[in-house]
Amino acid sequence: MKKVSVGLLGFGTVGTGVVRLLTKDKERLEERTGCQIQLEKILVRNKNRARKVLIDNRKLTTDVYEILDNPKINVIIELIGGIDQAYRYILRALKNKKNVITANKDLMASYGEELLLEARTNHCDLYYEASVAGGIPILRTLTDSLASDRINKMIGIVNGTTNYILSKMSSEGLSYEKALSSAQRLGFAESDPTSDVEGLDAARKMVILSHLAYSIPVQLADVSIKGITDVTREDIQFAKKLGYTIKLVGVSEVSNGAIDIRVEPTLLPDLHPLASVENENNAIYVHSEALGQTMYYGAGAGEGPTAVSVVSDLISVARNIALNVTGNHIFIPKKELHSRKDSLVESQFFIRMHMKDEPGSFSKLTDLFREQSISLGKLYQEPIPSSDVAEVAIITHITNKVLFENSFAMLKKLDVVVNAKYFRVERG
Amino acid sequence: MKKVSVGLLGFGTVGTGVVRLLTKDKERLEERTGCQIQLEKILVRNKNRARKVLIDNRKLTTDVYEILDNPKINVIIELIGGIDQAYRYILRALKNKKNVITANKDLMASYGEELLLEARTNHCDLYYEASVAGGIPILRTLTDSLASDRINKMIGIVNGTTNYILSKMSSEGLSYEKALSSAQRLGFAESDPTSDVEGLDAARKMVILSHLAYSIPVQLADVSIKGITDVTREDIQFAKKLGYTIKLVGVSEVSNGAIDIRVEPTLLPDLHPLASVENENNAIYVHSEALGQTMYYGAGAGEGPTAVSVVSDLISVARNIALNVTGNHIFIPKKELHSRKDSLVESQFFIRMHMKDEPGSFSKLTDLFREQSISLGKLYQEPIPSSDVAEVAIITHITNKVLFENSFAMLKKLDVVVNAKYFRVERG
Repeated sequence: MKKVSVGLLGFGTVGTGVVRLLTKDKERLEERTGCQIQLEKILVRNKNRARKVLIDNRKLTTDVYEILDNPKINVIIELIGGIDQAYRYILRALKNKKNVITANKDLMASYGEELLLEARTNHCDLYYEASVAGGIPILRTLTDSLASDRINKMIGIVNGTTNYILSKMSSEGLSYEKALSSAQRLGFAESDPTSDVEGLDAARKMVILSHLAYSIPVQLADVSIKGITDVTREDIQFAKKLGYTIKLVGVSEVSNGAIDIRVEPTLLPDLHPLASVENENNAIYVHSEALGQTMYYGAGAGEGPTAVSVVSDLISVARNIALNVTGNHIFIPKKELHSRKDSLVESQFFIRMHMKDEPGSFSKLTDLFREQSISLGKLYQEPIPSSDVAEVAIITHITNKVLFENSFAMLKKLDVVVNAKYFRVERG
Repeated sequence: MKKVSVGLLGFGTVGTGVVRLLTKDKERLEERTGCQIQLEKILVRNKNRARKVLIDNRKLTTDVYEILDNPKINVIIELIGGIDQAYRYILRALKNKKNVITANKDLMASYGEELLLEARTNHCDLYYEASVAGGIPILRTLTDSLASDRINKMIGIVNGTTNYILSKMSSEGLSYEKALSSAQRLGFAESDPTSDVEGLDAARKMVILSHLAYSIPVQLADVSIKGITDVTREDIQFAKKLGYTIKLVGVSEVSNGAIDIRVEPTLLPDLHPLASVENENNAIYVHSEALGQTMYYGAGAGEGPTAVSVVSDLISVARNIALNVTGNHIFIPKKELHSRKDSLVESQFFIRMHMKDEPGSFSKLTDLFREQSISLGKLYQEPIPSSDVAEVAIITHITNKVLFENSFAMLKKLDVVVNAKYFRVERG
């Protein structure tokens, strides 16, 4: 029986979950992989800290090179996070011919291609299922099950924090600030939530997904990103009146040789399967030529799901080690696509505005849209009590994005419009 | 570059789809597998029939042994369906050391274990992703991604025909008969729909899923099966009034070393993720220890999805051939579980009945339930115009199944009860 000796970098909540799974299911893992899986060393900051799992203290080390340069170890699991240090460690591990598993989406979104190439050169595996939507086995699905199909669009709710915040704003009518504090209290949001609420985390996941789905090199700079900090509970309420739910949605679409990747608060029709994905859950909706529409739903992250993803990757690596075929499943993208120009993007849009409640004001609005050839789909209007303005919410039909943005700028200048904002609308 | 020579058994709609994918994506498939994939022979009934894809007539044969015993061919794709013949063909192919891919759920539900064992003995692959929910890569997910987790329950809408019928009865208020004809007209139901509407098709899929999820031998006889022919549009309407949707649901659950597999019309709370799976779509909801709840959603079947699943399996087989590791990924279940006794099953139930609309009739009902220690959750009552009976719909709290069935038998004997029926209710 071949030996798989694991070096674990990082012993936080996910690391603890991984150790727990490896200990509890030892026999079952050996049966499934044909390998003896041994946890050799764990990199920690402090060797004397109390741990939530029973671990032989001699396995702990504060010296990363005791792991990276250890000839006994053939698999490294990286769970320290961050970019620069993790990058250096993984690169060194690969050059030392060690297989690598990582849950680090920041790293994979920035250096994924380079590291995959390095892994292949060294005949090593590099798996990273846990980096996107820990609880959903989406990367394996994209590489294996959809391999004979052609994906043309993915729509994802891939950030649990923002989905929790928007869900609470919608279901309980909380303000953004209150929903954020609630998320922080329950551990669904960091004390500094910037990377989540500004959409950066979701954008990194869309980069990793797009890279795999379309077999193309993708950079974070290719993604147009807008966070949820400007979404108010009123936006959510008025969208609801028109039959829509606001979610932070990542869209990645390929057409006519161009790619368009966006993360932004988006209106989904209530009947869209993604509209009912609530709280900290994640889901990814995939459109492909032959399969049509498929959806994958599960917990966004958390100790348990992320640890399961890491151990699934370890099982794959162990099977490859048993068969002596590590590094053979790494697929390096080749094709080039350019980013789609906004002038080619078509979409529906949701406009919310306050408009002076006086005779003729509405026709100024409709005149403008008619002149610009933008046709209106749904419309909701209600007077705001004891004020001279009315609340107006509009869903346009599909229109060109640049044309829409120009028209929206003109709309804001109309004397009857007090203030206005807009969001993109995803079709059902 | 290694050669993969494919023999195709059956050239109907799925077979045509497979040929189309193999032709269209030849280069991409070679790039992804490292093999040259060649379609060698196709078994047909009639060589002169017009075909929807361009095919060299010399590749067609009516003699199955030209394929099964052909030394050139190393992969057989079985798409003829049925049990006995397919079983003999596949067994012979495996004994001749050919890898096999099948979409045949009837066969796999009956002879899966034996064929998998035969495949392993001969160092051959046997893949059957397309046999369950063609459009959802669920088998691969169970064997790979959830390998380190422990599944304890699966709830599936795994039959597109019945889901289409129930959806139409619910959304358009059609009768069972009209919904069935509509399904037949659109090709979602066979002219003889028995195996679908009686729940047999769904039961076979639950056998295959349970076998993989729990690594145990499962037989069709282990499944308690009830079809949808007794479900009326009134049942659906009254369930709706209490906040539930009726679906043909397969449940497979393991607890305390016992397994319980059932296929029956079941009430799902409207907010349950499976409740919104409409029309011919399928979805499988998996509860596992570490991942928690995940759901996989997609088209139930159809030419496109089934062909993609078959070709995904072919890609896996080709990769294994390239690496010389066929037959290594076959996992034979070992553990034994016994079927859970009904006396241990607990559930909520939905009762629909007509009750005489006279003083005291309701208390006869509630007295009975109190004596039997069954507590009622939701209740809906409405008089039926110009009659002396009222419509009553009840959802019980969780109760023991045997206790419930005994009480229901007593309820039917009450003089105020005109007629009554019940369904199981799945928790949210």
